Amino acid sequence: MAADRCPLCEIVAGRQPKEIVYADASVVAFLCEPPATEGHLLVVPRAHRRDIWSIPRNEATAAMSAAHLLAGVIREALGATGVNLRQNNGGRAGQDVFHFHLHVVPRYEDDTVLPGCVWGEPPWVAPPDGAEARRRAADAIRAGVAAGTA
Amino acid sequence: MAADRCPLCEIVAGRQPKEIVYADASVVAFLCEPPATEGHLLVVPRAHRRDIWSIPRNEATAAMSAAHLLAGVIREALGATGVNLRQNNGGRAGQDVFHFHLHVVPRYEDDTVLPGCVWGEPPWVAPPDGAEARRRAADAIRAGVAAGTA
Repeated sequence: MAADRCPLCEIVAGRQPKEIVYADASVVAFLCEPPATEGHLLVVPRAHRRDIWSIPRNEATAAMSAAHLLAGVIREALGATGVNLRQNNGGRAGQDVFHFHLHVVPRYEDDTVLPGCVWGEPPWVAPPDGAEARRRAADAIRAGVAAGTA
Repeated sequence: MAADRCPLCEIVAGRQPKEIVYADASVVAFLCEPPATEGHLLVVPRAHRRDIWSIPRNEATAAMSAAHLLAGVIREALGATGVNLRQNNGGRAGQDVFHFHLHVVPRYEDDTVLPGCVWGEPPWVAPPDGAEARRRAADAIRAGVAAGTA
């Protein structure tokens, strides 16, 4: 897929509105829609990189650095008791959007995601979503990032 | 769990033999036993860090740096067509060993891991394993690391 047709490039460029919770020189993080759980984030490089084989190492580590920060924030801001990091490369591995993305999935005692699975596998019940719910989660995360909660 | 009873600390210290394929000042990578797929690796910090909330950021990024290198190597050395990175924090998230570990799971066209799942979820058929199979996979990965395949 050309970068100018890539949905994640559209988000990075600000042409597709999302709840952005973190951004630095290398990566942007925003709420995944639909989410696996409340506060489910994607961390993506600003540049169009297909997967772990095409992303430069410094951008991959920048994504992990952001995930590390955000994992701390979502525990404090949203009350998550667990976090899954997931990063899929290649169709066989379940990659569905071909711009490198690192999932940061908050886990809650009452969520319905299987322990060993990512979102979308049954039994899975979508959490409350919608613009207002996303705004509330994003505001809490942004406040945690600003406060240096992690 | 105290660090002196941690199974991953035992591996880092060399008291529990594993097929180590990569090591640097911060992290060690070795074959997971049992594997989800041939060449399934764990990248762990040398220091005892429970999870993403207790590992320093520079060690988390060192783990991603190693995974980035190894993802390239396993594609070249083992013929993987996909790779899943998985890192679980907290019992609710499926963490079972409480020393930070980043799974690097090669994916093959004929593997039996569900696209959205990690190993252990049905339907899952263990790949060929045993000391000889592990040695062959590890030798191929070590040769790739040494050759700078990635």
